[in-house]
Amino acid sequence: MIREDLRGRMRSLARAGREASRAMARAGGARKDAVLFEAARLLDERRKNIMEANDRDLSAARDAGMDSAKLDRLALTPAVIDSMIAACREVAGQDDPVGAIESMTKRPNGLMVGRMRVPLGVVCMIYESRPNVTIDAAILCLKAGNAVILRGGSEAFHSNQALGKVLRDALVSQGLPADVAQVLNTTEREAVSHLLKLDDYIDVVIPRGGEGLIRAVVEQATMPVLKHYKGVCHLYVDAGADLDQALHIAMNGKCQRPGVCNALECLLVHESVARSFLPRVAEGLGAAGVEFRACPASLPLLGSGAREAAPEDWGHEFHALVLAVRVVSDMDAALAHIAAYGSNHTEAICTRDHARAMRFLREADASMIAVNASTRFNDGGQLGLGAEIGISTSKLHAYGPMGARELTSTKFVVLGEGQVRN
Amino acid sequence: MIREDLRGRMRSLARAGREASRAMARAGGARKDAVLFEAARLLDERRKNIMEANDRDLSAARDAGMDSAKLDRLALTPAVIDSMIAACREVAGQDDPVGAIESMTKRPNGLMVGRMRVPLGVVCMIYESRPNVTIDAAILCLKAGNAVILRGGSEAFHSNQALGKVLRDALVSQGLPADVAQVLNTTEREAVSHLLKLDDYIDVVIPRGGEGLIRAVVEQATMPVLKHYKGVCHLYVDAGADLDQALHIAMNGKCQRPGVCNALECLLVHESVARSFLPRVAEGLGAAGVEFRACPASLPLLGSGAREAAPEDWGHEFHALVLAVRVVSDMDAALAHIAAYGSNHTEAICTRDHARAMRFLREADASMIAVNASTRFNDGGQLGLGAEIGISTSKLHAYGPMGARELTSTKFVVLGEGQVRN
Repeated sequence: MIREDLRGRMRSLARAGREASRAMARAGGARKDAVLFEAARLLDERRKNIMEANDRDLSAARDAGMDSAKLDRLALTPAVIDSMIAACREVAGQDDPVGAIESMTKRPNGLMVGRMRVPLGVVCMIYESRPNVTIDAAILCLKAGNAVILRGGSEAFHSNQALGKVLRDALVSQGLPADVAQVLNTTEREAVSHLLKLDDYIDVVIPRGGEGLIRAVVEQATMPVLKHYKGVCHLYVDAGADLDQALHIAMNGKCQRPGVCNALECLLVHESVARSFLPRVAEGLGAAGVEFRACPASLPLLGSGAREAAPEDWGHEFHALVLAVRVVSDMDAALAHIAAYGSNHTEAICTRDHARAMRFLREADASMIAVNASTRFNDGGQLGLGAEIGISTSKLHAYGPMGARELTSTKFVVLGEGQVRN
Repeated sequence: MIREDLRGRMRSLARAGREASRAMARAGGARKDAVLFEAARLLDERRKNIMEANDRDLSAARDAGMDSAKLDRLALTPAVIDSMIAACREVAGQDDPVGAIESMTKRPNGLMVGRMRVPLGVVCMIYESRPNVTIDAAILCLKAGNAVILRGGSEAFHSNQALGKVLRDALVSQGLPADVAQVLNTTEREAVSHLLKLDDYIDVVIPRGGEGLIRAVVEQATMPVLKHYKGVCHLYVDAGADLDQALHIAMNGKCQRPGVCNALECLLVHESVARSFLPRVAEGLGAAGVEFRACPASLPLLGSGAREAAPEDWGHEFHALVLAVRVVSDMDAALAHIAAYGSNHTEAICTRDHARAMRFLREADASMIAVNASTRFNDGGQLGLGAEIGISTSKLHAYGPMGARELTSTKFVVLGEGQVRN
């Protein structure tokens, strides 16, 4: 009986999202931006209220023995609130993706045919501890003219309710339905299972979190899933590469922010440069605290910070100052290693050879391929998309960083003067 | 034990598809086109063999009591073989979508950033009786650089095996792996259930057939599904519309080919033109054999060929010379009807008013919106895409007709000169 109720509640909620999405799809860019500016204003005005809600979550989490790294991610500090406010304003400043008509062409019968950008409809976000995702993800959905259903971690329940109220009040202030943004007001796990079957009302689900969460969503969802599993990024240093440049790129990839998905996890080095390059890697990255997991050929060249790689070190996302290193006989071997162990996230080559640069661009299979640049550039802001909702590592719909444009689709528009088909 | 075997066999097959997809992704346009021309040549050379295989299927189907419409769809007549040959040559003549780089832009740090079109990888097609889909769908997948796994109806088993052999021999003749095209050599139903869980190897599944088939695929698949449920297409005749034009468009939509998904199913007429327009509809479409399912306001205007619409006639795909007709008080009511009963396939308006034309374009939610043109134009060939693999009525990845380009994705390519992230 209770289960049936929960299913019914989720169905009502999803249907309300679908209804509200129609009004949102019709809202002009100026009105959507006004919602975002109002959300920014309310976030500022309600700092105290938001931090109180967050304190309730934090103290419950502390009582439950949450570790300090997780508590850190859960905390809505003044700086995190500032960053949410800045995100609202930044997204408001972007062009409205909706309604643009791309490349109107004329068919032989005089029909004008183009593609008009339209919202996806209803986006469901399922995410883990960071409550700021509630704002950062929702505002991109809204900018793209979608309704959004948000389900954060149960440990952030009160924080997410407070942030959801900001979004709803901002929508209503501009004459839009509050249900354009809905934060689930239950922490029951089964609520998600019910939502994931409602493909009549929900167009896409975007999970953000660990592999377990994403896998569970993929297995249950009957609607499309935009997912980002992990980033196992490689840098291949080619024969004849500029080794100063290669060192600079390897250092940036591994050390600048080792915990993120576009950080470098594995260095592949052509055998002809291994002897000259790897001792410099050992010195430069070693001084920054990097440990190495080395193949037998690279091990003697990497000094005391290295130990032999175990099989599971290939294809591993270390999320730390650890780098796998392998000497390869040629580019075929480098590409084969990437095909076997890469995660379709980011792959980079350092080379002076034009033909090999072009071949690597074509053949390495990842959402971003870099020639003579750091893997760390795989990011919506760095690539010119503005804020992002995640990085898709599967190829359907979006591959790579997803900004507001990736939360839209296109429909065909046909302008005629009475044409019919023969 | 046997079940385990089937699962293992499907896993091996899907993995072989993934392996083969790598070689196919690297194949240049000229080589892919040579495969298609060779397939055309083999189809012609093996007509006798193909028709013999088809005869085995046809006689088994006859013995099983299959009705004549289905037998018709199952038959590989010389004309159907001609059309498959023509399709191979037509698709070979299209531009190669793979490898093109769209809009390379320069970032402030000098990085050049573009999007390169890449194959999806492995496409799985699941379809019902027409065996020509084996060729028509596969060649689009191959053109786009993908490997394809084909599972047709069990009633077309021998036909599909013969056509699959054509594809494999054509691939091998150009030095490509046969496993780029695999036709399942089992009719066990569970084989599909196993395939639909292999998202490590299969990037997308495209079901073609009845709603039951599509629903079953959507429920089981852990990879994205590109689907086309049904086409419930409306034409709204606005106040002040050119009624000659409206009649012409309605006639074409309903009568030219009533069994297809872009045929007209429901006519919405503004009340101010109902009295002058509907008797002409009754006369013109009535003479072509159309029956009407009419709302109370339109019933007296449609003559003896009309009966009152039942609730289930709204949103119904008649697939026959039957047309639902409803008088509406204004465009809001027309758009509300479409929102309630449309299928996101095709919607049309006939109007002289620019503002209402533009509003209809924006607000009607379908993969193609036509102003003063027939719904029948929602077709890859008519819209300039070339051959199509289906018409997507969901918005993720593709919305509307799907040609070779819709069987690709884009990855980011970044060309640097040693840039790193600050």
